[in-house]
Amino acid sequence: MAIVLGPNQYGKAQTHLVRVQRDTPRHEIRDLTVSTALRGDFGAAHVDGDQGDVLPTDTQKNTVFSFAEEHGVGTIEDFALALAEHFLAQAPAATGARIEIDETPWQRIATGDGEHDHAFVQSGLGTRTTVVNVDGRGADRTAHVVSGIKDLTVLKSTGSEFHGFLKDRYTTLAETDDRILATSLIARWRYGTTDVSWDETFASVRGLLLARFAEIHSYALQQSLYGMGHTVLEKHPDIAEIRFSAPNKHHFLVDLSPFGVDNPNEVFHAADRPYGLIEATVQRDDAPEAGAAWHAVPGWV
Amino acid sequence: MAIVLGPNQYGKAQTHLVRVQRDTPRHEIRDLTVSTALRGDFGAAHVDGDQGDVLPTDTQKNTVFSFAEEHGVGTIEDFALALAEHFLAQAPAATGARIEIDETPWQRIATGDGEHDHAFVQSGLGTRTTVVNVDGRGADRTAHVVSGIKDLTVLKSTGSEFHGFLKDRYTTLAETDDRILATSLIARWRYGTTDVSWDETFASVRGLLLARFAEIHSYALQQSLYGMGHTVLEKHPDIAEIRFSAPNKHHFLVDLSPFGVDNPNEVFHAADRPYGLIEATVQRDDAPEAGAAWHAVPGWV
Amino acid sequence: MAIVLGPNQYGKAQTHLVRVQRDTPRHEIRDLTVSTALRGDFGAAHVDGDQGDVLPTDTQKNTVFSFAEEHGVGTIEDFALALAEHFLAQAPAATGARIEIDETPWQRIATGDGEHDHAFVQSGLGTRTTVVNVDGRGADRTAHVVSGIKDLTVLKSTGSEFHGFLKDRYTTLAETDDRILATSLIARWRYGTTDVSWDETFASVRGLLLARFAEIHSYALQQSLYGMGHTVLEKHPDIAEIRFSAPNKHHFLVDLSPFGVDNPNEVFHAADRPYGLIEATVQRDDAPEAGAAWHAVPGWV
Amino acid sequence: MAIVLGPNQYGKAQTHLVRVQRDTPRHEIRDLTVSTALRGDFGAAHVDGDQGDVLPTDTQKNTVFSFAEEHGVGTIEDFALALAEHFLAQAPAATGARIEIDETPWQRIATGDGEHDHAFVQSGLGTRTTVVNVDGRGADRTAHVVSGIKDLTVLKSTGSEFHGFLKDRYTTLAETDDRILATSLIARWRYGTTDVSWDETFASVRGLLLARFAEIHSYALQQSLYGMGHTVLEKHPDIAEIRFSAPNKHHFLVDLSPFGVDNPNEVFHAADRPYGLIEATVQRDDAPEAGAAWHAVPGWV
Repeated sequence: MAIVLGPNQYGKAQTHLVRVQRDTPRHEIRDLTVSTALRGDFGAAHVDGDQGDVLPTDTQKNTVFSFAEEHGVGTIEDFALALAEHFLAQAPAATGARIEIDETPWQRIATGDGEHDHAFVQSGLGTRTTVVNVDGRGADRTAHVVSGIKDLTVLKSTGSEFHGFLKDRYTTLAETDDRILATSLIARWRYGTTDVSWDETFASVRGLLLARFAEIHSYALQQSLYGMGHTVLEKHPDIAEIRFSAPNKHHFLVDLSPFGVDNPNEVFHAADRPYGLIEATVQRDDAPEAGAAWHAVPGWV
Repeated sequence: MAIVLGPNQYGKAQTHLVRVQRDTPRHEIRDLTVSTALRGDFGAAHVDGDQGDVLPTDTQKNTVFSFAEEHGVGTIEDFALALAEHFLAQAPAATGARIEIDETPWQRIATGDGEHDHAFVQSGLGTRTTVVNVDGRGADRTAHVVSGIKDLTVLKSTGSEFHGFLKDRYTTLAETDDRILATSLIARWRYGTTDVSWDETFASVRGLLLARFAEIHSYALQQSLYGMGHTVLEKHPDIAEIRFSAPNKHHFLVDLSPFGVDNPNEVFHAADRPYGLIEATVQRDDAPEAGAAWHAVPGWV
Repeated sequence: MAIVLGPNQYGKAQTHLVRVQRDTPRHEIRDLTVSTALRGDFGAAHVDGDQGDVLPTDTQKNTVFSFAEEHGVGTIEDFALALAEHFLAQAPAATGARIEIDETPWQRIATGDGEHDHAFVQSGLGTRTTVVNVDGRGADRTAHVVSGIKDLTVLKSTGSEFHGFLKDRYTTLAETDDRILATSLIARWRYGTTDVSWDETFASVRGLLLARFAEIHSYALQQSLYGMGHTVLEKHPDIAEIRFSAPNKHHFLVDLSPFGVDNPNEVFHAADRPYGLIEATVQRDDAPEAGAAWHAVPGWV
Repeated sequence: MAIVLGPNQYGKAQTHLVRVQRDTPRHEIRDLTVSTALRGDFGAAHVDGDQGDVLPTDTQKNTVFSFAEEHGVGTIEDFALALAEHFLAQAPAATGARIEIDETPWQRIATGDGEHDHAFVQSGLGTRTTVVNVDGRGADRTAHVVSGIKDLTVLKSTGSEFHGFLKDRYTTLAETDDRILATSLIARWRYGTTDVSWDETFASVRGLLLARFAEIHSYALQQSLYGMGHTVLEKHPDIAEIRFSAPNKHHFLVDLSPFGVDNPNEVFHAADRPYGLIEATVQRDDAPEAGAAWHAVPGWV
């Protein structure tokens, strides 16, 4: 029996970068939080303390900043792919690179003269995110993109039921045909290709998720998620699968009868913990292999 | 020398309430986090453990929920005033009541058929808040409303300078005539009256704060805040004063010269801590006395 | 009517400093988060954008770091006092300085050879804190120290009752003579002098707060706090008053009767929100005037 | 091509439970945050909205509370195993169950009369955690336990070097033979069996991790982690592998030379973001198969 090094990775987490595009007086900004990591044959660093193969995390941070100037920041997916390629080229011991980027949404401030050229306010519908994994080099190279959205908090004030569930000795929950359904959605979808219109696809998927959440008459959060995912895959052939992690943010109808007050589904206590947690995948049965696509993607599988 | 009880208050903090208005198929929701507190002659509870004068915090919570049904939730200011009145009537030992309410913003989800009737997504420009203090009864009664906005994160990518400052032995900061100015604003304004169109005034103040932040060519965050507050007071005679607490969220220009790369104010590191913290008040010199208006308002004075 | 600048202050918040004392192989570390602020006649900065009187927050940060080397870090109270004096000397427009310091507790790691010389683990009973306000110069100078502790989370599994309270139409709470009492305590005490053995007094006050919380048979959190504060003042003549902010962290007895299971005060649901919030002051009736002692101390009054 | 349901699970997250053992006047408390989840053949719930196979998350929560009374809470590992077994028995559609428990550390309050019988204060060296996965039934049943510790924040003020690393065009980091090494450790170890003295092993592993962190002269955080893991595996044959996730909490030496002040490794700026992130596994090369042991364990692989 021997004790050996197993899987490992290292990198710089949460480099917070703001890139201003100022070619014209009408500025654009991209606000990114970038985490980079390399994995591979780094046994010497761990076992012997020999850093000869280790491209420091400080260098990774420097690279993120400089790439933002040298190459600009277009979409977070392309920026992540470029960084992954670069790090694999720089660090021969690395067999794979993982880049995660969150993009904080900003919009222009409205003034009496219309949208301002260089003043912005944070607001948006969720946070856009991507995780890119690139493995191997040359003919063996594979590149995977898993993009997503998080902090997309949605609520339906009706159009949600929950009944007919399995019961046992510990079941006290009442069945209901009208409840609040609310979640703070995390959705991540795996692209089957890297030849994608990233911005357009993100906007479309977000719109579909919101619209389908609204439209589906829900018999459980599971069913809403499945329907939302199904539509996304129908409309986007370049998406191979989509995964959801969705807290069921309970809104409990408050019993006002002790005060002689009726409560016809109008006053709810929004509880924090515990919460239901629903996790589900919707996928194509002929999807290309996931390979390392989900490597170190925050989540549940 | 004696050791005695000094100022005190007690209550229920952060009752999270969602009120659905469902008189028509087009629902409305109000999402409130309510904190209530009573202050006054509660010496027996503290010194002797006698709770005879103490209206329990559990009762306060029940009242918040029941009032939301019995009286509905119009504006957070009116809801807070009604609660304060009620608690003073119920608890004779109380000399004052303080109600704080935050309102989480939601908007309707857009679908192919337009805005949905009963599906919503959290999004907005900051969180609306109010703190109401009511003291005394009958002829001695005073009621104060301090409303505000928080989590209003704004950024200018140019139009901000900082130079000409005092220097001493420890000064290393370079002067600049072009920097990013960013803050996550908290503004709270004291009304001189309770006869106010709360919703309209809130919307107007938020709009003015945003627009003035955008328009003012800034020589310091202090100067931006003063200008923003000045405009708010000019436009709103019913506001007696406005207080700001504004972190200067530093965006450091990244030095890319070691890599032979120029950085013409395009790539910034958005730092977390430490941050500048600017706190300022703008007020009318003939404003009515503040009295207890700022009692237990979260902030800095 | 004129619109004018009111109270204001500015500074650098949350400079996170670790000071290593390495005169011998047995190192000591102090882990401080320091916030500094100046207040006074800074109208020009606000109204005209003229920074001539403004000692930049960046300079304040530099000073904090350099003072840690030049003067060392003894107690947080002495360090704060020295910084406040210095800033008032450097910035003639300032009429007052406020310094807040939190100290993160570390202890030595135990190894087979005893406590290690230079390896530490974060652990402790609460976080020590101080807020120092110095106003004026020369004969008019006043210096106030408010020290405290926060994040001191305590629980009694019995020895706590709650009954005999005021009831109204909205009261449903059952009276109890045995409940869990728990809080995450914030206590801040104002010293009547600056001639204090800071470390010894802090350790003593913390010990008294813990012991009295444990020993007092409680009829309400109010009564426990009053008793704790009373003992602190009895034992420490140099403390003029003590203020508490204490969430009543509710532990609800879970009703297991639907499952035919008795629950004799053994299984509790620890709830997050809403929570009770008890705030109280215990003071000497002959205490010296507080003056600016509580200026911008985080809290409730 | 068809669009189908893929992997999924559902459950109740973060049920916060305090169990008081009060058989004698000297109470014991266990403070647990429990998350339960079931996975398996839940297609009907997702595709058709049919909940017939779904044991509600509310029932799962009830069960957690009732089990705490019916069976008591011994170790978190045994409690989790019992819950997993039960849920698999109750929900025939489930193929696997996952139980995660965090235990918040408390210690007795010291009074003049020694340690108090029923008063406690939160304090400890990290938070103990476990994730249990049970799959299948009867002869096919497998049970895996991954226990761990998190929030174990440690620091060495010397005895840490970093040099000899790979350099490229973007490398500016200076080599050093004396720096602060600090991390907030998460370690999770997979047991090869469920026949373990859980409490003793946890205490031993925590002690080894701390002692080895202290003792190892570090040439990189990677090397410290590897050494720590190696010792744990050497001493504990029932542990098959151990995984670390360790932020490199940078402490930057502050340049005081502009002020004419030397800084001989004494004053550091403790930075928040970005941070290094080191993730590594140490394992036996003859370890039993992991199977579902790491299913939905929070982390990085």
